Amino acid sequence: MSELKVVVIGGVAAGPKAAARAKRCNPNAQVTLVEKGEWISYGGCGLPYFVGATVKELNDLMTTSWEAVRTPEFMKATKDIDTLLGWEATKIDRTQKTVEIVNVGTKEVRNLPYDKLVLATGADNFKPPIDNIDAQGVFTMKTPKDAVDMQEYIKTEGVEKAIVIGAGLIGMETAEAYANWGIDVTVIEMQPWIFPQMLDEEMALVFQNYLESEDLNFVLDTKVEKILVDNEGKVTGVQTNKGNFEAQMVLVSAGVRPSVKLAQEAGLEVDKAIIVNEYLQTSDPDIYAGGDCVMCTNIVSGERIFAPMGSTANKHGRIIGNNVTGAQDKFPGVLGTSVVKMFDWSAGKVGISEKDALRLGYDVVTCVVPGPDITHFMPGKKLIMTRLMADRKTGKILGVQIVGPGKVDKRIDTMAAAMSFGVTAEQLSNIDLAYAPPFSSAMDNLIVAANVLKNTIDGKAHSIRFQEAQTKLHDDNVLFLDLRTAHERAQKALPADHQMHIPIEELRARAHELPKDKEIVVFCILSTRGFEGQLILNQAGYDNVSFIQGGIQFWPFK
Amino acid sequence: MSELKVVVIGGVAAGPKAAARAKRCNPNAQVTLVEKGEWISYGGCGLPYFVGATVKELNDLMTTSWEAVRTPEFMKATKDIDTLLGWEATKIDRTQKTVEIVNVGTKEVRNLPYDKLVLATGADNFKPPIDNIDAQGVFTMKTPKDAVDMQEYIKTEGVEKAIVIGAGLIGMETAEAYANWGIDVTVIEMQPWIFPQMLDEEMALVFQNYLESEDLNFVLDTKVEKILVDNEGKVTGVQTNKGNFEAQMVLVSAGVRPSVKLAQEAGLEVDKAIIVNEYLQTSDPDIYAGGDCVMCTNIVSGERIFAPMGSTANKHGRIIGNNVTGAQDKFPGVLGTSVVKMFDWSAGKVGISEKDALRLGYDVVTCVVPGPDITHFMPGKKLIMTRLMADRKTGKILGVQIVGPGKVDKRIDTMAAAMSFGVTAEQLSNIDLAYAPPFSSAMDNLIVAANVLKNTIDGKAHSIRFQEAQTKLHDDNVLFLDLRTAHERAQKALPADHQMHIPIEELRARAHELPKDKEIVVFCILSTRGFEGQLILNQAGYDNVSFIQGGIQFWPFK
Repeated sequence: MSELKVVVIGGVAAGPKAAARAKRCNPNAQVTLVEKGEWISYGGCGLPYFVGATVKELNDLMTTSWEAVRTPEFMKATKDIDTLLGWEATKIDRTQKTVEIVNVGTKEVRNLPYDKLVLATGADNFKPPIDNIDAQGVFTMKTPKDAVDMQEYIKTEGVEKAIVIGAGLIGMETAEAYANWGIDVTVIEMQPWIFPQMLDEEMALVFQNYLESEDLNFVLDTKVEKILVDNEGKVTGVQTNKGNFEAQMVLVSAGVRPSVKLAQEAGLEVDKAIIVNEYLQTSDPDIYAGGDCVMCTNIVSGERIFAPMGSTANKHGRIIGNNVTGAQDKFPGVLGTSVVKMFDWSAGKVGISEKDALRLGYDVVTCVVPGPDITHFMPGKKLIMTRLMADRKTGKILGVQIVGPGKVDKRIDTMAAAMSFGVTAEQLSNIDLAYAPPFSSAMDNLIVAANVLKNTIDGKAHSIRFQEAQTKLHDDNVLFLDLRTAHERAQKALPADHQMHIPIEELRARAHELPKDKEIVVFCILSTRGFEGQLILNQAGYDNVSFIQGGIQFWPFK
Repeated sequence: MSELKVVVIGGVAAGPKAAARAKRCNPNAQVTLVEKGEWISYGGCGLPYFVGATVKELNDLMTTSWEAVRTPEFMKATKDIDTLLGWEATKIDRTQKTVEIVNVGTKEVRNLPYDKLVLATGADNFKPPIDNIDAQGVFTMKTPKDAVDMQEYIKTEGVEKAIVIGAGLIGMETAEAYANWGIDVTVIEMQPWIFPQMLDEEMALVFQNYLESEDLNFVLDTKVEKILVDNEGKVTGVQTNKGNFEAQMVLVSAGVRPSVKLAQEAGLEVDKAIIVNEYLQTSDPDIYAGGDCVMCTNIVSGERIFAPMGSTANKHGRIIGNNVTGAQDKFPGVLGTSVVKMFDWSAGKVGISEKDALRLGYDVVTCVVPGPDITHFMPGKKLIMTRLMADRKTGKILGVQIVGPGKVDKRIDTMAAAMSFGVTAEQLSNIDLAYAPPFSSAMDNLIVAANVLKNTIDGKAHSIRFQEAQTKLHDDNVLFLDLRTAHERAQKALPADHQMHIPIEELRARAHELPKDKEIVVFCILSTRGFEGQLILNQAGYDNVSFIQGGIQFWPFK
């Protein structure tokens, strides 16, 4: 037979997508999907929601929208794809163009011939090499079985305290799932702040401040040295460089590592993950790779990064399905987009971190702009705090991070679209975003943030960050000027040693009351008045004036 | 004095913004804001929400985020702007560079000298020239007074039936406000479908179908000829070319007309509205204009359009404030973005209508893709129906329209950002949108829609619209093939004369059961299986096969 033979290794996201798409593009192709586990096409990102009982049935993660389970029979009947479950690919013979697969149970070995091979081998949880990492009560979160085991353990063991190692996306989502069961959760993170891949320090501080109000505990900048167990080998806690912490359950969520053994042994080019070109071809043009096992180009920085994400895996699958059947579609890269919901808040980002921007040599400028997510006169409005980062020279937006109780995801997606095209602050400020009072303000948060950023780039706005403002609180050379109303002032205080109160409406008339020999830091709730106040003082002859970026609404320090 | 004199005519949105920005850019400028009404900077788009008692206090529409009312005193104290309320600008002397203003009450006349003049005169409601248009109980919606009067009338007159003339944004939002009071509302529209500026026919049909389930009544393709009144001159209903309709209250919401008299009499270039260049200068370079009184460039079509919107007015104000003080900022144009919430549904659009696309000579291709707005296994998911329209030759997206109970506004803003850069279906399909189960699917609705559109452009997907499917329901040459499960089939029927039922899982095996001499229209709920079914049948040798675009979830016909 001369029909195109496509073999796909890996059945979670990129693999089944590539297989299905290849069949759609070339109905005569012989497509075989090989998966070592028991399931294909499960919604892995939904597992924390199953653990937390938000999703009631595990089956819901495995079904189509019409509740069909994607069994091998289903895949054959509807898509004419041969699916081998419980078979692991062990070797690629690139000369013969065959792949060796072994049955996980029977150890039977087969060799599958291919014309085009697709590697969608995904990633595995990283397990730090510490004592007792496999003790009873220590879990990782990867497969449906992990989620079922975890939930069962919670139900039967009467877990009161849990520790989550790693404050990344999966760890934190699972921490919330544990909290849903009334468990007292402590998150231990090696980096100095939470969500270190997603948030820069000031945004992480604000989010952490909220999460602590929801009774999550955080131990940061801390290394877990050992899992502690009792005589029966059951976990009792963890030992860290900052002391011991008790727990009846531990989640190890210290990141994932791409599964690249098969590719490496076949001599394909591998960095941290498999290297592919824009057509998603590996260094062997007949072997494609996609999903969590490959490196992606970061569109903002141009750098090659490892950024595993279910959404990317699905895109990869489609492009690979097209290309193995003759197309020449290109994958443009990723923006490092992520979003997370924790209790009643959300956080998200697009682009690169400040640390990366500085490393890459950008002249970094940032602004932090809180504001209601719909127009302020409508009921149901909630705040979000938007932080934009740009290159001062070009005005190009390098990163956006947003946190708060309001609608974060909407602005994150809007920025993902804009940053796909290298949007500048100037361009962002004029995008024709939709306005209706139930959904937004006449000037959406993103437009306002872009304007504040332009004011900063142009040298009109002089602001300092929370962290910097905090270092000045007890400085005798710094006067904090509160521009709020008396009513607002009574509600929330800033613990600065030297402060004055002049409501914004009185500032023009009373500017002369301020000392000329002090640094002045003005502040209000959301920093709208802060900027106005700085301008008024500049006009009145005060040069050493700044305002607190973002006001004190989200002031993250006690 | 040699300080820059800036006079701004119009105090709602663009005007105050321009005035405030001019002062921020040049603190020494003398800025005068002239407004003929009683208020400045009110949230005009919030008026329907005040009428419907969603917004409880009218004052909320007039205040800053810290609840300060923007009085002339406030404007002077905080912004050093001179505000003249109750003064109307009546004449511009472009040679002398003065503007004549008349006090609305005392008729006092003054002449204000200017270096730069800003026209932000806004738009007025269009009142059709029909009998009794000013009768008691006939309202328009423009000023806070209109809203107060309307609410008072509802409360005191015991209104049971109301008629809204015009199914555009303001009319429909106000129709919902009336319905909030338990009033039986009938909307009469001259065009054949609702929201004729925002939606194309199929989307309007689907939205109308929902709104009728919320007990709104529609009389379309109908012209109001006369307002009917009783002996005391109070409204009793309307007379149309399709009969009379009873009501105790009528809202005339037949669109707005830009206020261009002042500009016209000064000899400035005016089309439908004032013509400005990209710097928002009129044909006199010392006179700028912005907001609802100017023409804007449509970024998609390149045409000059009249698209009044509060969000645009605010952008205009800022740019004008910059430019009158020496900058050279450009306004890139608009995308015709709009969004509306009606009861539990929303609708929105970006770009041009299909009618305009055809008029402009595009080879139009569309797709309609319904789907849950978050991943299907999460509780709280709601459907949205996305319709993309592109130019077949280039793949460039010309328009997007979305309706449904789910999160429409998020996708509208995302598309506004993408379409600002001329996004193609190919580019859209690869945007790194954020994925987390509480917010989206691994493949967001927009990504799926882009893929479906690409399949259509590539000739893989053959679909027909609701309207076309409806014309075939009783055609003896057409067989409708239902691909749903038996359970789904029992829940909702399609009233086609000739139909067969083969669940998608059985179709490959049973394709031979279908007649070769009929046109086949396959369908399911959301059209995922529809496309799959079409491909299976094509492979089985059936060529005259299409699927119903969007499935029958939102089938709009009875």
